[in-house]
Amino acid sequence: MSGTDPEPSVARQPPVRDPAWPAAVEIFDTTLRDGVQFEGISVTVDDKLRIAEQLDRLGVHWIEGGYPGANPRDAEFFRRAAQELELETATLVAFGSTRRARGRVDEDPTLRNLVAAGTSTVCIVGKSWDYHVTEALRTTLDEGVAMVQDSVEYLTAQGLRVFFDAEHFFDGYKRNPEFALRVLEGAVVAGVDTLVLCDTNGGSLPHEVERIVADVVRHFGGVTIGMHTQNDTGCATANAIAGVVAGATHVQGTINGYGERTGNCDLTQLVPNLTLKMGIATLPEGRIERLTSVSHHVAELVNLPLLPQMPYVGQSAFAHKAGLHTSAIARRPDSYEHVDPAAVGNGTRFLVSDLSGRATIELKAEELGVELDGAQVGQVVEELKELEHKGYHFEVADGSLELLMRRATGWEQTFFELESFRVIVDHQGGGSVDTEATIKVRVGEERIIATGEGNGPVNALDAALRAAIGGAYPELDDIHLVDFKVRVIDTGAGTGAITRVLLDSADADDTWSTIGVSENVIEASWQALLDSLVFGLLRRRG
Amino acid sequence: MSGTDPEPSVARQPPVRDPAWPAAVEIFDTTLRDGVQFEGISVTVDDKLRIAEQLDRLGVHWIEGGYPGANPRDAEFFRRAAQELELETATLVAFGSTRRARGRVDEDPTLRNLVAAGTSTVCIVGKSWDYHVTEALRTTLDEGVAMVQDSVEYLTAQGLRVFFDAEHFFDGYKRNPEFALRVLEGAVVAGVDTLVLCDTNGGSLPHEVERIVADVVRHFGGVTIGMHTQNDTGCATANAIAGVVAGATHVQGTINGYGERTGNCDLTQLVPNLTLKMGIATLPEGRIERLTSVSHHVAELVNLPLLPQMPYVGQSAFAHKAGLHTSAIARRPDSYEHVDPAAVGNGTRFLVSDLSGRATIELKAEELGVELDGAQVGQVVEELKELEHKGYHFEVADGSLELLMRRATGWEQTFFELESFRVIVDHQGGGSVDTEATIKVRVGEERIIATGEGNGPVNALDAALRAAIGGAYPELDDIHLVDFKVRVIDTGAGTGAITRVLLDSADADDTWSTIGVSENVIEASWQALLDSLVFGLLRRRG
Repeated sequence: MSGTDPEPSVARQPPVRDPAWPAAVEIFDTTLRDGVQFEGISVTVDDKLRIAEQLDRLGVHWIEGGYPGANPRDAEFFRRAAQELELETATLVAFGSTRRARGRVDEDPTLRNLVAAGTSTVCIVGKSWDYHVTEALRTTLDEGVAMVQDSVEYLTAQGLRVFFDAEHFFDGYKRNPEFALRVLEGAVVAGVDTLVLCDTNGGSLPHEVERIVADVVRHFGGVTIGMHTQNDTGCATANAIAGVVAGATHVQGTINGYGERTGNCDLTQLVPNLTLKMGIATLPEGRIERLTSVSHHVAELVNLPLLPQMPYVGQSAFAHKAGLHTSAIARRPDSYEHVDPAAVGNGTRFLVSDLSGRATIELKAEELGVELDGAQVGQVVEELKELEHKGYHFEVADGSLELLMRRATGWEQTFFELESFRVIVDHQGGGSVDTEATIKVRVGEERIIATGEGNGPVNALDAALRAAIGGAYPELDDIHLVDFKVRVIDTGAGTGAITRVLLDSADADDTWSTIGVSENVIEASWQALLDSLVFGLLRRRG
Repeated sequence: MSGTDPEPSVARQPPVRDPAWPAAVEIFDTTLRDGVQFEGISVTVDDKLRIAEQLDRLGVHWIEGGYPGANPRDAEFFRRAAQELELETATLVAFGSTRRARGRVDEDPTLRNLVAAGTSTVCIVGKSWDYHVTEALRTTLDEGVAMVQDSVEYLTAQGLRVFFDAEHFFDGYKRNPEFALRVLEGAVVAGVDTLVLCDTNGGSLPHEVERIVADVVRHFGGVTIGMHTQNDTGCATANAIAGVVAGATHVQGTINGYGERTGNCDLTQLVPNLTLKMGIATLPEGRIERLTSVSHHVAELVNLPLLPQMPYVGQSAFAHKAGLHTSAIARRPDSYEHVDPAAVGNGTRFLVSDLSGRATIELKAEELGVELDGAQVGQVVEELKELEHKGYHFEVADGSLELLMRRATGWEQTFFELESFRVIVDHQGGGSVDTEATIKVRVGEERIIATGEGNGPVNALDAALRAAIGGAYPELDDIHLVDFKVRVIDTGAGTGAITRVLLDSADADDTWSTIGVSENVIEASWQALLDSLVFGLLRRRG
């Protein structure tokens, strides 16, 4: 937040750790194994390597890289990781399962693949719910325990550090605690390093989790106890915290909560909750500040938009809308923000919306560095009201908002002037498609007509515009499109509905968002494209 | 799930309520007041009336309709609601705040507006954190208490039932419990009905909430204690549950967790957690089954896509991906699903993905009612792999998936044959835009050329295609587009990236989703449009 100078915080106090809680918790990231099960994620080996770099940058202790036995892509990941990845804080872990029922460990393909992955540490999953042993594996409870014990023994004998994921542990413990504990005991006898209690179906609630983990901690005093929670009750984060409160010192989770069904424990929530709120050490000093950046970077790599409402790391996490309170927030952010946004690498944002008044616009102008006088503020408020009514949404398009504010001061862009454009898309039999755009502009005194081809209409328009004005503005080469979103606003009107295009653009230093709204997706794209390039030129040339 | 006949569940047992917990909790919905503060939501009075109908259909006890003092639109909502809404189970509540510092209650505009809203029940917010009284209100602590007490007294004297939202209660209690309790005491003395403890900045964690609510319950034995939690730590649901465990019997929240910043306690999680898991009564008998439908309906009304990963109500909440387990899930769903999806009106889904094998495709074909032999299953698996590699994503496009499976059986669509199409978009000076599409098709023996105009290229193409084949297929009139999504897949390639178009279509009976992928947004839209209309015709004509 620019231009304000808040007094030192009295509302925020440093966290005080309850002496009954652990002093430190190790963070085990399973984005690359469990996280990629999220519906809509599909990653390549390259993507996985780049995600691992981000995780190491964040400073997690363990990176579970994949399941080499189940997936040739994951076997390739471990091969390439050994050659290409230089990890600073994190250790790579390969995932697998216990040996088959009634099989031999030294002939088991999954265990062999695990060893072949070449990591120092492995994590194997085994069943701790009696119902799954008898119904899914169709074997005896004694054999269920032996599968775990034999497998851990085999892997430790290979010199590996072994983590054991006790699958369905909480469901199992609720029905047959004696068997669930026998399975853990088998792993301990065989030399396991960490017992990870998994809420595989995700159905548990914090008060149950706390009670059960406390029981386990009582039984296995010297062994590290870990948590692996899923979000099916909306309590994955709270369940992991409940486990830590009961004595767990290892937590598995994923960046942005990715994972099967409703997702996993979200490390972007868990880490700041434990460290900033409960005073429990997690990441190395100075790394929590990277949380927002890593969260957004990983979202890019898995190619999913990040929900603005994500706690701590979302764009809206510290966004203030109500016009009523904006001046109080500017004066005393600590009284309206539960942590300092900078502590997680995020920032305060003031939202513009049809509910907002002059105070919000004034603050926003200050944030963007645009000087508006009283009458100009009033004009912007009126114009925003009208445009938002038409479907514009400036909350998410700071670039276009800044241009609108500048226009209210009398500024106009003089980089070029559009006369007209035409886009033609031609689909011939056999599926070949030709696309071209012709654009007519004036740059200064010169009239330029340029045609661009493209593999799509927006691309062709972009090419035509760059061909027309690129001679005058060579810096356009550095500006590129990062993301392009289209949303139908008035869905009731079918294919004739209004479309809103959001464009995220970037150069080497920065990213900005612009917006266009029209019944015509090409026209809406054009508006957003125009604002994007004008904004980019304005930043360079002023 | 069709075609399977699971044995009765032994894994799922009816919930057993801890006798220390309340037997029932009242549900207070604030979607229309707090929820519409969610970034990206902008609703009309009509939208609000339709959302209120959904909330009543769900069976919540209280519907907070808006803040008539702050917002003329909300005042209009209450006027129209009194005439137009026929609520069955719910009671409407108007929201406001306490009187101004050093002001008189009988001259206070907010309190007057509240009374004028004409509801039987009102909810007022007042400050319970000393820091906000001295820093934001800039008045004394005694005046802070008097503002609450006077306002509650004034409103109860008008015959109103009064709920008091103690703003920033948890932050206030942590710093100055004596003052926070004095504020509540003032409301109680004045005849308040319910004391609602608000975690306004959303920074609390469940173990703190449980301890603090237990203290408050001890102090105010006879008064109803309510919870209002925000999701800034990712624990809004868990915090509300912690409050109930400590004795709260009223919970405020919103459908889909909408709300400022990171959102509010999500009633679609809270209600099934309390009732299905903890045995605490919430909605009237038989209403929890409407949860998924109401959640999706409200998402439509506020015009936001619903995250598939939402617990309980999301499309992925009971979706199973791993090919390994699909047959076990089909046999014993209770061992892989934490509740029966039907209990919340949702269902089991099997996902198709590049990780999936033959078993998943066989189950999916059975679900869609397509008969595939062994070789055809193999062919579909191969084709899916290749298409998903290109960017198709059949998980979310059941309509296109069914067409692909049918084609594997030798079927092909004979409704019409495309020869070519051309789309022209013409933007002239002054901003006028003309769009037309020309299409050449064969229907049976006849060759037809038709041109359609539209306000956008997809709309023009749709118009041209309907003009060309509508004579032969008049039922196309009943099929309309519901939603249209575009996503850039390979974002690194800028405006030349691959685009994926998803189209949701509907007729009177059903909705279906289709997909198109191309570097060209028009071509991708065409593919999705083609599949949409062919699928619609196929459903009618077989």
